[in-house]
Order: sequence, then C-alpha cells, then structure tokens
Amino acid sequence: MRLHGYYRSSASFRVRIALNLKGVSYEQIPHHLRKDAHRAPDFLALNPQGFVPVLEADGAVLIQSLAIIEYLEERFPDPPLLPADPLERARVRALAEIVACDIHPLNNLRVLRYLRNELGHDQTTVEKWYNHWIAEGFQALEAMLASQPQTGRFCHGDTPSLADVCLIPQVVNAQNFQLDMAPFPTIRRIFTEALNLPAFARALPANQPDAE
Amino acid sequence: MRLHGYYRSSASFRVRIALNLKGVSYEQIPHHLRKDAHRAPDFLALNPQGFVPVLEADGAVLIQSLAIIEYLEERFPDPPLLPADPLERARVRALAEIVACDIHPLNNLRVLRYLRNELGHDQTTVEKWYNHWIAEGFQALEAMLASQPQTGRFCHGDTPSLADVCLIPQVVNAQNFQLDMAPFPTIRRIFTEALNLPAFARALPANQPDAE
Repeated sequence: MRLHGYYRSSASFRVRIALNLKGVSYEQIPHHLRKDAHRAPDFLALNPQGFVPVLEADGAVLIQSLAIIEYLEERFPDPPLLPADPLERARVRALAEIVACDIHPLNNLRVLRYLRNELGHDQTTVEKWYNHWIAEGFQALEAMLASQPQTGRFCHGDTPSLADVCLIPQVVNAQNFQLDMAPFPTIRRIFTEALNLPAFARALPANQPDAE
Repeated sequence: MRLHGYYRSSASFRVRIALNLKGVSYEQIPHHLRKDAHRAPDFLALNPQGFVPVLEADGAVLIQSLAIIEYLEERFPDPPLLPADPLERARVRALAEIVACDIHPLNNLRVLRYLRNELGHDQTTVEKWYNHWIAEGFQALEAMLASQPQTGRFCHGDTPSLADVCLIPQVVNAQNFQLDMAPFPTIRRIFTEALNLPAFARALPANQPDAE
C-alpha cells in the first residue's frame, strides 16, 4: 500500500496509526502541504480534492481518512478498531466524529490561511480560533469519557479503537498551539496510554521521513 | 425511536432521510437552535456536546449524524445505504465525508456566530465564507461524480446511498445563501433525482413540524 500524506497532517497521522495497529506495511509518499505540493497536477489527477491522506490500495485510490480507516477495518479485521456490538460501534464512531467533524475541519491549514489572507486576521486571533474549537470539542469528549462506563484504558475499553486513532493526533495539534490541557484529565490519561504503544508513537509527526 | 433535531439542522436532515429510506418510524423532538434550546440543562444531560441530532434508540442515546446512520445501516440493513464491496463502501463514505467533514463543519451556526460576534464580520463576509467552503467542496464532488464510472442516477449507482443522504441537505444549504450551482451539473441532476423520492422530500426542512 502507498500512503500519500504529510507529516504534520493529522488526518494522515490517523491513517498511519490505523495501518500500524493493523500491522499493514506501507510506503509513504510525502507531499509538502505548506509548499502546496497537494495542488500539483499529478496529485490532483490522483485526488481531485487535492487533500491528503490518499491511500493507494488493492488497485484503488481511497480518500478521506475515516473512509480509509473503515476500509482497513473491513479488509484487515484483526485487531479490530470497532467493537462488535452496533450500539458500541456507534459510541466509538461518535467519539471519533467529534474530532473529525467538529474540531479538526475548523483548524485545517486552508482555513487558517483564509482567516489570515482573506479575512486579514493576525496570528493571535488565528491561534485563539484554533484553540477555541479544540477546547469546545474536548469539553464534550472529556464529559463523555469521564462519565461513561464504556471508557477504559482507552476511549472505549482497554484496547485502542477508531476513537483513539482520531483523538491522539488532535491532542498533538492542541500541544502545538499550547492549549491548556488541565481541564481534560481523561484525555491526557488516554494520550499517555496511547503513546506507550509503538503503533501510535511511530505515527507521530516527528517520526516521519518528511519531518523537518 | 425519538429523534432530537431542528428543522434547519442539516445533520438532523441527514438522519431524517436515512430513517425515511429505511422505513423506520420515529417521533421528532424539536430543539430551537437559534433560541439556544440545545444549551438547556436537560438537553445537555442527554448530549454533553449540546448538538443535534440525537437519536434515542434501543435504550441508548446516539449522537453524531454519521455514527447514527452507520448504526441504522447495521440495525436495519434493508434497503442498504452502503454497497456490499469494501472498496465501493469506501467511495460512498468518502463522498459523504467531503460534505460531513470538509464543508458542513465550517458552516455551522456556532461558526457563523463566532465570525459575527467574536471576529466582528458583517453578513456579506459571513455569506462569502459560507459559500466559499461549499463551492470548494462541491468542486471536488462534481469532479469525482462527473468522471467516475460508479456514479449513476445517484452518487453511487442507481439507488440512494449515504453519499446522497449527506449531499442533498448540503445543496439545500447552498440554496439558502444563493450559491451559484451552474458549475455543478451532476450535483444538480442528483439533487433533482433525490427530491423525486418521498424519503428525501418528506425530510426537507420546510416539511418538519417545527418549520417556521
């Protein structure tokens, strides 16, 4: 498999974790987003949206990190990233989507650029925006993780799931802009737990071939 | 089943379509988002995130529209909203996530309020923002839908899927702020096709009990 990504892309980071947890070997093709490598014609021919990650797998071109990870889950069921019970699967997917739909899209490079270039905001305003949406999402996640009995060593039980695959990269992003993590003890505990696993640690931005 | 929603919420709209397509009967509990009914203590007790939709189903409380719809797909497999083949499922989920992760989160009520209140932007700037992200996402969707052989009467083949369930509410949102839909003929064709089905038409905001 060939994973087109970028070391700092947290959606790419999710797919790296999932591939590592599944034990699937993959070749990395880095695209330097800050140099607009994802707008190059050959990359747009692969993915008209011009986003990473893109996974070339089984003769197909897969886009969108959650769709890619659901594919990996169906193709390589062991170890599972979703529980067997439909209601439990719904909880794990919901936790993942709080990150993937309600936090991360607001903090993408293209959005930060729009705030700076089209709307003329300074770095302080952009950082406040960035942290505002993470904090709001983390408040919801912390409330759910701290109060619901399904939470274990990880977001759902004692093994990593799709929820952790999405949460850990978002915590790394939060650290980049020095978000105060004190109000989120359960998230911090799970973060530490996850980074003790090589599948997560090896997927960290700093450990990628294109890290600067 | 009890669906907590709001007639104008496009994530609630998605779940209404899915329930209608599956032929599952449900009671609607409207929460007036513009009057902040979703911040009321009893609603926050149900969903700490304070968002709609929330589906009370099978003794559980489900949140996040895509997680809810995946649950409905597992619980009521017929008619399917995802194809059987894993690579095809990945395509449908990716199309859905272009809407659910890359367009809609930027155009939520809370984001528009932040642009107006915290950042002090006027209505023209907010509408330009709104349409910018829809147009960018629709360009990617149009390119994929127009060029890929899997597209049929609907986004994937000749029956509605999760991709259409996400796309149709986004087109309704685009119409609200008069986005020029001329560059998106395939999306327009699928939109017309979908609204010919009662499952989509009955789910329109204007047809909900709380519509104003």
